[in-house]
Amino acid sequence: MQTETLTEAPVATPLTPDMLRRIDAYWRAANYLSVGQIYLLDNPLLREPLTLAHIKKMLLGHWGTTPGQNFIYTHLNRVIKAHNLDMVYLSGPGHGGPAVVASTYLEGTYSEVYPNISQDAAGLKRLFTQFSFPGGISSHAGPQTPGSLHEGGELGYSLSHAFGAVFDNPDLIAACVIGDGEAETGPLATAWHSNKFLNPARDGAVLPILHLNGYKISNPTVLARITHEELDQLLRGYGWTPYFVEGHEPALMHQAMAEALDHIIADLWDIQLNARETGDLTRPRWPMLVLRSPKGWTGPATVDGRPNEGTFRAHQVPLAVSASAPPEHLAQLEAWLRSYKPEELFDINGCLMPELAELAPAGTRRMGANPHANGGQLLRDLRLPDFCDYAVAVPAPGAVLASDTAVTGQFLRDVLRLNAEPRNFRVFGPDETASNKLEAVFEATNRQWNAEVEANDEFLSPDGGVLEMLSEHQCQGWLEGYLLTGRHGLFNSYEAFVHIVDSMFNQHAKWLKLTLEIPWRRKLASLNYLLTSTVWRQDHNGFTHQDPGFIDHVINKKASIVRVYLPPDANCLLSVMDHCLRSRHYVNVIVAGKHPGPQWLSMDAAQKHCTEGIGLWPWASTDAGQEPDAVLACCGDVPTLEALAAASILREHLPELKIRVVNVVDLLKLQRSTEHPHGLSDADYDALFTRDKPVVFAFHGYPWLVHRLTYNRANNQHLHVHGYREEGTVTTAFDMAVLNELDRFHLVLDVLNLVPSLGNKGAYLKQFIKDKLVEHKLYITHHGEDLPEIREWTWKG
Amino acid sequence: MQTETLTEAPVATPLTPDMLRRIDAYWRAANYLSVGQIYLLDNPLLREPLTLAHIKKMLLGHWGTTPGQNFIYTHLNRVIKAHNLDMVYLSGPGHGGPAVVASTYLEGTYSEVYPNISQDAAGLKRLFTQFSFPGGISSHAGPQTPGSLHEGGELGYSLSHAFGAVFDNPDLIAACVIGDGEAETGPLATAWHSNKFLNPARDGAVLPILHLNGYKISNPTVLARITHEELDQLLRGYGWTPYFVEGHEPALMHQAMAEALDHIIADLWDIQLNARETGDLTRPRWPMLVLRSPKGWTGPATVDGRPNEGTFRAHQVPLAVSASAPPEHLAQLEAWLRSYKPEELFDINGCLMPELAELAPAGTRRMGANPHANGGQLLRDLRLPDFCDYAVAVPAPGAVLASDTAVTGQFLRDVLRLNAEPRNFRVFGPDETASNKLEAVFEATNRQWNAEVEANDEFLSPDGGVLEMLSEHQCQGWLEGYLLTGRHGLFNSYEAFVHIVDSMFNQHAKWLKLTLEIPWRRKLASLNYLLTSTVWRQDHNGFTHQDPGFIDHVINKKASIVRVYLPPDANCLLSVMDHCLRSRHYVNVIVAGKHPGPQWLSMDAAQKHCTEGIGLWPWASTDAGQEPDAVLACCGDVPTLEALAAASILREHLPELKIRVVNVVDLLKLQRSTEHPHGLSDADYDALFTRDKPVVFAFHGYPWLVHRLTYNRANNQHLHVHGYREEGTVTTAFDMAVLNELDRFHLVLDVLNLVPSLGNKGAYLKQFIKDKLVEHKLYITHHGEDLPEIREWTWKG
Repeated sequence: MQTETLTEAPVATPLTPDMLRRIDAYWRAANYLSVGQIYLLDNPLLREPLTLAHIKKMLLGHWGTTPGQNFIYTHLNRVIKAHNLDMVYLSGPGHGGPAVVASTYLEGTYSEVYPNISQDAAGLKRLFTQFSFPGGISSHAGPQTPGSLHEGGELGYSLSHAFGAVFDNPDLIAACVIGDGEAETGPLATAWHSNKFLNPARDGAVLPILHLNGYKISNPTVLARITHEELDQLLRGYGWTPYFVEGHEPALMHQAMAEALDHIIADLWDIQLNARETGDLTRPRWPMLVLRSPKGWTGPATVDGRPNEGTFRAHQVPLAVSASAPPEHLAQLEAWLRSYKPEELFDINGCLMPELAELAPAGTRRMGANPHANGGQLLRDLRLPDFCDYAVAVPAPGAVLASDTAVTGQFLRDVLRLNAEPRNFRVFGPDETASNKLEAVFEATNRQWNAEVEANDEFLSPDGGVLEMLSEHQCQGWLEGYLLTGRHGLFNSYEAFVHIVDSMFNQHAKWLKLTLEIPWRRKLASLNYLLTSTVWRQDHNGFTHQDPGFIDHVINKKASIVRVYLPPDANCLLSVMDHCLRSRHYVNVIVAGKHPGPQWLSMDAAQKHCTEGIGLWPWASTDAGQEPDAVLACCGDVPTLEALAAASILREHLPELKIRVVNVVDLLKLQRSTEHPHGLSDADYDALFTRDKPVVFAFHGYPWLVHRLTYNRANNQHLHVHGYREEGTVTTAFDMAVLNELDRFHLVLDVLNLVPSLGNKGAYLKQFIKDKLVEHKLYITHHGEDLPEIREWTWKG
Repeated sequence: MQTETLTEAPVATPLTPDMLRRIDAYWRAANYLSVGQIYLLDNPLLREPLTLAHIKKMLLGHWGTTPGQNFIYTHLNRVIKAHNLDMVYLSGPGHGGPAVVASTYLEGTYSEVYPNISQDAAGLKRLFTQFSFPGGISSHAGPQTPGSLHEGGELGYSLSHAFGAVFDNPDLIAACVIGDGEAETGPLATAWHSNKFLNPARDGAVLPILHLNGYKISNPTVLARITHEELDQLLRGYGWTPYFVEGHEPALMHQAMAEALDHIIADLWDIQLNARETGDLTRPRWPMLVLRSPKGWTGPATVDGRPNEGTFRAHQVPLAVSASAPPEHLAQLEAWLRSYKPEELFDINGCLMPELAELAPAGTRRMGANPHANGGQLLRDLRLPDFCDYAVAVPAPGAVLASDTAVTGQFLRDVLRLNAEPRNFRVFGPDETASNKLEAVFEATNRQWNAEVEANDEFLSPDGGVLEMLSEHQCQGWLEGYLLTGRHGLFNSYEAFVHIVDSMFNQHAKWLKLTLEIPWRRKLASLNYLLTSTVWRQDHNGFTHQDPGFIDHVINKKASIVRVYLPPDANCLLSVMDHCLRSRHYVNVIVAGKHPGPQWLSMDAAQKHCTEGIGLWPWASTDAGQEPDAVLACCGDVPTLEALAAASILREHLPELKIRVVNVVDLLKLQRSTEHPHGLSDADYDALFTRDKPVVFAFHGYPWLVHRLTYNRANNQHLHVHGYREEGTVTTAFDMAVLNELDRFHLVLDVLNLVPSLGNKGAYLKQFIKDKLVEHKLYITHHGEDLPEIREWTWKG
C-alpha cells in the first residue's frame, strides 16, 4: 500500500535550510497580504505606525481558511517549478478569497490582468482596499480571480469541477483544496467516487487536498472530529491513498508538506507512466493529501482573553479594530501584521524581494495564468455534421411518428465521432442516456467507466465519451469543469429531477454573467441541457416525476445568458440542437419528447421555424391571412399535438371560424424585446397574437410562466393559458392532459367560451365536447389502458 | 471490532427447517404478488392456464429491486415478531413499489386501509390491476402505501429521512433500504455521517441496509464494483460496522440473513442498553447490513437468449408479453409465476395460508401499520409562549432599530424550552443558526453532536435540540423525517442557498398534496423555512449569495399547500412565526432580515397587519382615505424601508400628492381568491390598489413574480414592480438597492414619471432625485464605505 503519514517529526528534510527560509518567507508574504486585504485602507507596508485612519471602517472577509491555503499554494508552486507541472488550483473552502488573491498577486498574474493593482506600494494599497469593499471583490475566489475556474460562493462542487477539468486533458493536474466544511455537503461526499471514471492514460490527474482546519462558521467539522483510523478508512474506501500532513509548527510543517508532495507527484507519475506505457488502464489508487492545520493559523492566539487561532472564532475577522473596539486591538493587529516581517518580504518600492519572487513558476505555469482556468482561450469550434442529414421525412403534417430524442441521438452520435480526436465533446447524464432514447451515441463511443466490469455489462470502457453516474450534481459539476476548461458538452436528464441542480445552475449562470463583464475572460461553450421524460409522459412513475418548473427557475437569471427551447418535433429538435452546440456563453435549456410522436414539419420548414423561434402555421390555421377570431397557440410537443387536434375539431365542426395556430419554439420570443434579446417587438407580437382576440395557449409547463412573460403585451387580458397544474399521477398520457385541462377538448371549449356569437353550431359543438369528456372519464375509470387512445391521436390534416 | 461476513456458507443455521420452509414460502408469496402486479389483469391465482387476455396491455413497473426488498421485509418481520420491535421500513431504491405493496398486503394492512383490495381472489385481482395503471398506484412506495414515510420517486433521501424519524424516538428502529444506485447521489453519500449526530440514549436507531443488486437503469453501480476491501473501509470510515450477506441460493441466503439480523439486533440493544444504563453517550459504531443479491432475483434467467436475472435487463419488465411479443414469452411468464407455487401459498379463496400469515407481526407492530409512518396520528400541538411577550416597543414608526431574527430567536428559545419534554420541536440549519442571529436558542439547548469535542467548542452536546450540518440536503431530509413522524420543526437557511433543496421541497410538497386526498393519512405539522441573510445584505459575499428565487419555485406547487410570508419588521415576524408553528400540512416560507433595521409596527398593529396579510399604512400615506394619485406598495424588509423613504421624500417635496402606502406580508394575497385560498377578491384588491392608478411596487424578490401573481387584476397595466434584477455584487446595502433600482430615489422617479401633470414642482423634484443618484454614484466610487449611509436611512415620519 502506497502510504505514509508525515507529521511534525518528518523522517526526511527535503528542503534545504535556505529553501526552507525562503518558502516560509513566501508564505509569510501571502499571509501578510491576506491580513492586509481584510484590514488596511492605507499604510500597506507598515512604513509608519498603524492608526485607525489606516483601517477599513467595515471589517469584512474570512481569515480562517486563508493561511492554510497560502501554505498549500506556496508548496504547489515549489513542485510546479521543480517538475514543470501543468497545474490549476481550485479553492473549494469558500471564503479563501484573500489567499488566492494574495498568491496570484505575488506571482505577478494579478497585476498583469489588473495593471492598476501594480507590484508596488500604490498597487498594494489598491489591492487591500478593493477587498470586500463596495465595487471591489468578494471574499471568495471567483471569476475576477485569475487562475480560478471555480466559484467559492456556494460550497460542494470543487472536486466535481476538478475532475471535469482533467477529463481529456492528459497533462493537467487539478489541485483541489477541499474544505472540511465543504466536505460535509452531499455533492462533495459523492464526488470522491469520480476516480471510478478517470482514465489514467487519456485524462489528467486530480490531486485532492482535504484541508482539515476543524471548523465551519461556528461548528466543528465532521471529518476533523472522527478518529484518524476512520478518516483513513473513509478515504481509502473512496479509493484514494491519503498522505497526512498534520501540525502547526511552520518549519516542521514545511518539511512535511514538501516531502508529502514529492511522494504524491512521484506516485502520480508512476500511475500515469504505467498506464501510458503499458496500456494497463486498471483503476489505480490515486494519491491525495490531508492537511490538518489550525484555523486562522498564525493569527492572534487569543482575542479578549479567548482563544482565537485554532478555533471557530478565527472564521471571519478575528480582531475587531475600530473606534468603538477595545483600543488595544489596534496594537494587536499591528503586532500580528509585523509578525510576518514585511520589511524582509517587500523592497523599498513595495515589490516582492527577488529571492522570493523567483520561487514562483513562470509564464503560464503560474497557476494564476494557466490557460485551462480561462478555458475560452483554448476553446475550439466543434466539427458538426449537417443536421439536415438526419431529418425525418414528413410527407404531410402528422403523417409519420418518430421519437424526437432518438433522431437527435443519431446526430449526437456523429458529433461524438467527428470530435473523437482531439476529444472535446462529451455527453453527461445520471444513467438516463439510454432511457432518454439517445442510445445511438453508444454506436460511437462507450460510457467511461474504470471500476470493475462484468460479462453482462454494456457499453463500458475506460475510454468512453459518455459520463453517467446517478448523481445529477456530479453530471453538472463535471460538465461545468469540462466547459470551464474550454470544451463542449450536453447534459441529458429527466425534466423533473434537473431541479436537483437548480442551485448549481444558478452559480454557473452567475459565473457566465460576471465573466462577460471581465475583459480578460474569454467566452465558453454554452451549457446545454436536454430535458426529456417530461411531465406529460410519466406512465408508471406518476406525480413525483412531474415537474416542468426548471425553465421557470432558469429565466430568473440574466437575459443575456439564458435561452429556452421547446421544439415540437424531431426536425425542430435537430435544428435547435445544432444551434445550441454552436452557441457560446449561454445556458441553453431544450425540452423535448422521447416517446414516438407525430411529426409536423419538413426539415426546411423546421429550420425556418426554429430560426424565427415562433411562427404561424398556415397549414393548421383557417384564418387565411386575415384577422382571426381566435388564436390557438402552443409550445412543447404534447401541447402542440393537442392544439392541432383542437384546430382539427374546430375546422370540422365550425369551418367558418377563423382560427390561427401559432407555435412557439423559442420561449423567450414571448417576452418584450426590451427584456430579452430574443423577445419580439410589440408590433411583431401583436401581428401574431392580435391586440384583442382571444388567445388559447397550450403550454408545456406551468401556465403562469406564460403570463409572467407576456403580462405587458397588449392582449394580455385575452390570453388563456393551459398547462401543468400539479394534477394527475399514474394515468394515460391523454388523461394527464385532460386532468390538467391541456387536452384538445378543453382547448376547444375555451375557444367556444371566448369567441362570441357562435350560435347553435357553437352550442352543439360545446355539448359534443362535453360528452366526449364524460366518455373519456368513464373510459379511464373502467378501462384505463393506453393503447386504444393512441389510435385517436393523429391530427386530422 | 464487531463484525462478521456471512456468505453462502453460514456458520450457523438460526432458522429451523420448518421456519426456513415457511420464511421461503412467505418470500415466494411476496414475489408472486409482485410479478402479478406487473403483469396480470385477471386469473390472479393461476387457477386456469394463462392467456393473453389475462395480461395487461401496457406492461409497466420495476422488477429489479423487488425480490431483494421482499426478502428484506420478510426477514425484518421475523425479528420484529421475535423481539417485539417497533420498526418502520423505508424503501430507498425507488421503484420498489411492488415489493412494499405486496408485503403490506400479505400482513393485512393494505386491505385494512383499502377494504376493496380484500384478502381474497377478487381483492388480488384488484391489487394487480391497480398497479402502474390509470387511476392506480405508481411504481414506487409513496403516500398511498401504508407504512411508507418516504417517497421513492426521487432518489437520495431515505437515510436522512430515517434519521429524522428516530430523533427523539428512543424505541423506534428505522430500517432503511438503500439502493446502490441511490447510494451514488450526493445527499445519500453524506447522510451516512448522520451517526455523528445521534444520541444512543434518547434517540432511536437506524438500521441501514445497503442493497447491492449491481445495476441502476442500464449502468452498473459504483458500490457494487469496488473491491470488498474498499466497500468495507468506506462503511467503516463512515463510522458503521457492516455485516455482509451475499449470494443467491435462497436456502443459504435465508440462514445468512437471519443470522446477520440476529447479530445486528443484539448489537443495537447492547449499544442502547449501555448508553441508557451507564449514561455513556460516546458515539458507538452502529451495525448495518450489506445485502448483495442478484437484480431481478428469482426472475427469468434468460430472455430471448440473453441473461436477465442478475443483469441490468431485469430493471423494469424483464419479459415482454403481448400479441406482438414472441409467443413463447407467455409460457415463460406462466412458468415464472408458477415457480413460486401459488397453490401452496394461497388457499382456495385466495387468502394467504394461516401458517404463513402468522409469520407477520400483529397490530401496529406490522411495518405497514406502524403509527410513526403516519405521523399525523402521533402529532401533538406545540406548547407556545405568547409571542406578544417578545415584542419590540415601537414608540413611533422607524424610531427604533432591531434585528428581526434576533427577536424571534428569543421566542424560539422559549419554544424549545416549553417543549423540551417530551421533545417534539427542533431547529435545523447548515451551521447558520448563529450567523442568522438566532443565537438565543443556545440559551435553551445545544447543538446535537456526538463526534469528538474540543475545549474551544461552543454549544455542543449529544443532547441538543438544534441540528446543524453543512448540508442543506441533510437539514431538509432530517426535518422531513421528523415531521413525517409527527413532530415539529424549523429550517433556517441563507436565502440564496436554500435552492440546494428545491427538488426536495418539490417532493415534500407533492407528498402533502397527495396525503390530503388519502382519507387514512393524518395531517402533519407544516414544514417551516426561515430564510434570511437575504439578497439585499450580502456585504462581503456578493453576487453568489444573491438569489431570492426560492419563493418563485415554491409557488408553482399546489395553492392548498404553500404559504409565503415577508414580514417587514420584528413584531410582524413574531406574529408570522407563531402562526406558522401552529399551522398544519403547509410549507411556510418566511423571508426576514437579520441585520438591525428600523421597526414600524407596534405589536398590536403588527398582529392585525399579519392577520390581514396585506394592508394600507395610513401613517405613511397622504391619501387621507381618498382615491390616491399613486400607490407605493412594498413587500420585504428592505423594500419596505425604501418605499417608506420614498413616501417621505414625496411628502416633503410634493405634499399635495396623494400617495397610498400598502405593505404586503402574505405574498399570496396578491393572487386572485380563485387561485389561492389567501388571495384577495378582485373587489378587495381594487380597493387597495385602485383600478387605474399607478402602482409602484418595491418587492423583495424578482420583480416579475409580482406580475405573475397579478396579471389578471384590473390595474395590471399600471403596475410597475422594482425588485432584484441580478445586479450588484460586493457593495453597500443601499447601493445594492440602487443598482437594482429598488431604492427610494428610483421609486420616487417612477412615481413622478407615472403621475401626470406634476408641473414645475415635479420637474424640480425629478432633477433633485437625479442629482442625488449622481451624488450616490460618485460617493460609492470614491468612498464606498457603509457607515455614513446608514445615518441617512431612518424614515422621516
